[in-house]
Amino acid sequence: MHASMASPVNWQTRRQEKNRRLQRLSDLASGPIIPTADIVTALERLICPGDKVVLEGNNQKQADFLSRSLAEVSPAVVNHLHLIMPSVGRPEHLDLFEKGIARKLDFSFSGPQSLRIGQLLEDDLLEIGAIHTYIELYARLFVDLNPQVALLAGFKADRQGNIYTGPSTEDTPALVEATAFRDGIVIFQVNEIVDDVSDLPRVDVPASWVDFIVQADKPFFIEPLFTRDPRLITPLHVLMGMMAIRGIYARHQVQSLNHGIGFNTAAIELLLPTYGEQLGLKGKICRHWTLNPHPTLIPAIESGWVESVHCFGTELGMEDYIAARPDVFFTGRDGSMRSNRAFCQLAGQYAVDMFIGSTLQVDGEGHSSTVTRGRLAGFGGAPNMGHDPGGRRHASKAWLDMVTDNSLLSKGRKLVVQMVETFQDSNKPTFVQELDALAMARDYQMPLAPVMIYAQDVTHVLTEDGIAYLYKASSSDERRAMIAAVAGITPIGLQQDAKETARLREEGLVAYPEDLGIRRADASRNLLAAKSIGELQNWSGGLYQPPAKFRSW
Amino acid sequence: MHASMASPVNWQTRRQEKNRRLQRLSDLASGPIIPTADIVTALERLICPGDKVVLEGNNQKQADFLSRSLAEVSPAVVNHLHLIMPSVGRPEHLDLFEKGIARKLDFSFSGPQSLRIGQLLEDDLLEIGAIHTYIELYARLFVDLNPQVALLAGFKADRQGNIYTGPSTEDTPALVEATAFRDGIVIFQVNEIVDDVSDLPRVDVPASWVDFIVQADKPFFIEPLFTRDPRLITPLHVLMGMMAIRGIYARHQVQSLNHGIGFNTAAIELLLPTYGEQLGLKGKICRHWTLNPHPTLIPAIESGWVESVHCFGTELGMEDYIAARPDVFFTGRDGSMRSNRAFCQLAGQYAVDMFIGSTLQVDGEGHSSTVTRGRLAGFGGAPNMGHDPGGRRHASKAWLDMVTDNSLLSKGRKLVVQMVETFQDSNKPTFVQELDALAMARDYQMPLAPVMIYAQDVTHVLTEDGIAYLYKASSSDERRAMIAAVAGITPIGLQQDAKETARLREEGLVAYPEDLGIRRADASRNLLAAKSIGELQNWSGGLYQPPAKFRSW
Repeated sequence: MHASMASPVNWQTRRQEKNRRLQRLSDLASGPIIPTADIVTALERLICPGDKVVLEGNNQKQADFLSRSLAEVSPAVVNHLHLIMPSVGRPEHLDLFEKGIARKLDFSFSGPQSLRIGQLLEDDLLEIGAIHTYIELYARLFVDLNPQVALLAGFKADRQGNIYTGPSTEDTPALVEATAFRDGIVIFQVNEIVDDVSDLPRVDVPASWVDFIVQADKPFFIEPLFTRDPRLITPLHVLMGMMAIRGIYARHQVQSLNHGIGFNTAAIELLLPTYGEQLGLKGKICRHWTLNPHPTLIPAIESGWVESVHCFGTELGMEDYIAARPDVFFTGRDGSMRSNRAFCQLAGQYAVDMFIGSTLQVDGEGHSSTVTRGRLAGFGGAPNMGHDPGGRRHASKAWLDMVTDNSLLSKGRKLVVQMVETFQDSNKPTFVQELDALAMARDYQMPLAPVMIYAQDVTHVLTEDGIAYLYKASSSDERRAMIAAVAGITPIGLQQDAKETARLREEGLVAYPEDLGIRRADASRNLLAAKSIGELQNWSGGLYQPPAKFRSW
Repeated sequence: MHASMASPVNWQTRRQEKNRRLQRLSDLASGPIIPTADIVTALERLICPGDKVVLEGNNQKQADFLSRSLAEVSPAVVNHLHLIMPSVGRPEHLDLFEKGIARKLDFSFSGPQSLRIGQLLEDDLLEIGAIHTYIELYARLFVDLNPQVALLAGFKADRQGNIYTGPSTEDTPALVEATAFRDGIVIFQVNEIVDDVSDLPRVDVPASWVDFIVQADKPFFIEPLFTRDPRLITPLHVLMGMMAIRGIYARHQVQSLNHGIGFNTAAIELLLPTYGEQLGLKGKICRHWTLNPHPTLIPAIESGWVESVHCFGTELGMEDYIAARPDVFFTGRDGSMRSNRAFCQLAGQYAVDMFIGSTLQVDGEGHSSTVTRGRLAGFGGAPNMGHDPGGRRHASKAWLDMVTDNSLLSKGRKLVVQMVETFQDSNKPTFVQELDALAMARDYQMPLAPVMIYAQDVTHVLTEDGIAYLYKASSSDERRAMIAAVAGITPIGLQQDAKETARLREEGLVAYPEDLGIRRADASRNLLAAKSIGELQNWSGGLYQPPAKFRSW
């Protein structure tokens, strides 16, 4: 019937276009190597207007030589790019939009640049596709966001193009696979080029996936994002940490978990070897972690609490410590860590009992966001790890603890804990009538308000006042009352009814410190296993090398 | 304070144990190469009792030389293994349990072996950890299921141990990473060993992640699991396919999707170039797919419907066709496909508008399962793709169509469509009062009943009677009535109230074919773009090479 369908269609347009562009570098590159001085010219020849370009902005690995070079191309030649970036962290990332080189942005996280993104949006110089959680962004690379070019970073390459990423393997495997196997052009900046594959510590990305390498003018920028100085942990953090350990971790026997970044969770990490030990919990909770290598976890590791840590990325200063603790961390044959954000986010989604993190605003129903007016911060991994994955089919004690009936059709839930002080500062309540995210959605006519974690996913809210066990709520009214009961003197907290709060405490739906057997007076910094960066270094036997900015002792 | 914490603890026990075992092969292996004849001895020296062992049973790639060899080790030497397998498909996989070599099993899918797993469980020869969805199983490899050994399969290796997996890259990248970077031992069987890396079509796994390679006695087993012969598509399948296209795909403008395996969805694939074309839908729906390379998708591809297909694995006979269509499929520089189940499941979870699949039983609320008494089938990817990922933060038309109110705090949903005939055969209703999975959970005292897709995740049920738009249900009673309205003369369907059904149709909560402008009499096999495997091959211009069992024309 369709015997003569041998179609006249060209099915190799992507491959031919790629080859056409590669040809344009034949006089410039030597094999896969682009001379450092020629990178701007090379980018002008390899990238075309309107291309989807992956730019490795990660947390701990910045293709910053490539992004600085991209900012130097002529906007007459290269313009209207659609940038796809896990993390927007460098000033030049946004220069690209000011210059008209880039136009559209799909991303996940933007810490220090969040305000400027808002301004560029106002000025109509930047168009946002969506603000994703990390693995959602990677997922789209394989569906409707296929990149033409990926600009990536590694530590070292050999002359064939085999790449050693260094311990910050991070987002690279996902970004490179989606590009290399869709006839996109893969370009790596590296700090050093060695002659032979045997000169590389290990191969993280094989040469047959890589088109070009270029030696950067200087090593890529990396900053310690996940280091929290114990000096800044307050007695209030200690109190909340004690409540978390006793009222959540021990109660539900949490075996595997992710901690957000912040002083609250840093306090917990530092309380495990002291307060946790006093409670006899060692070996019974917190055995498996999906986590960046937080320095504040060192005392718990050294005390034998931690069986494994799989990491999204690395942390500056932790390299030697990690390499010396292969029983705990995932490392290569060469000894250095292999992090992997895609797999760690997957592990944090599907394989852990609990996610606990902080936020800037929580409303009366329990919706939360870190977006505040004018700041398009992005949420990184929180939306992914801070929800209950509907596809999970294995049970654990903590997961089953969330079941509140006897139906065979009920299943457990991931524990999603919001741990917040009732006020951010004396003028800024954490608990608010309406999230700023909603005003933002109205202002920019967003199809979806930038909510970080939705109320239906939150199982516990923990404040300095107490813990609301939201998974036990039998109605939305009761749920609101439970949140109000721990919301202090914020607008939400002031709505509480004293009698109702007493009932909630009596029935175990809400627990105040005294209900958990915790005396507020006991919450002292003396309970912290380390009270300074220097003490963390001591715990590590000198293996942890704090970056200069933390060397203040 | 803790200055002298330089601990006497050994932090390298895993690495030392690995090296101890590698040493035991020093007289046997030549570099990374184990002689084919010595594999049983090698496995007895490398694997210890109680080890967690990943065995690559996938859908389309079987480490069957290694599994057959493992079944020959002495149970006195190697026993009580904890096997971790994506797919349990080979008879010898279960021989391992009968012989006492293996004891515990964590897995995702077991098609042909599901009955025997049930028997071994009854006989107390096998203990089940859990039945996971694929990426949940990979996720646990990075948390609480760290393997000591991985037994994997590839097409080719060089003498250094660089691996070319062939187009069935499938589960391998996830399995190898979790083992290689946790001081586990990675062993690949390959069909062929070549001298140098330049003799490999491409590198899928770098040698620095691989400990041993062994040439298999014969190429690994592969069978065509995803080929559906169009001869077996009935007019009823065609009717349901027309309803799906008109009542779901077109109505919600579904751009990106996953199809389950089955004649129902095969019918849809074959109706796109005919019925879909008549409706003027080309280029407007079904542009991006996450899917195994179904032969029945060939006519839609050739007709220009399909912009991209990212694949979990491959399909026997499709190799040349895929290699000739790089604009559609993800392929390497060498031309052959690179599939990747982890990324494709991630894409199917986070990046597509819709999952549509079939099942064996649905209850009155919409819970479903393919588990029937005595058969522990496992669900593969369905639980993952058949739920709404709570972390999704990008919008699409179809996704936003699931919103039924105006709240800024509402978000869209993934479309999860159950497409079933009301009866499996004349005696077996699909719609049942209680899933067999619940009896199974009671019999085996499972912590979680083996439900494939939970009611709360299902947005549409489609039968030959009509479509129930469950996402519109305003109460659980209404939802039950909607399901009953399309459940024919099954026990559930017989509960329907004619007046209520009329109301549901009138209000657009349920649609019968005539409500969609579809005449049952028009549902003819003549609408199929191909009515046989031979016609599929013709569509492909002879590139598709059907396996022998399908060459019946």
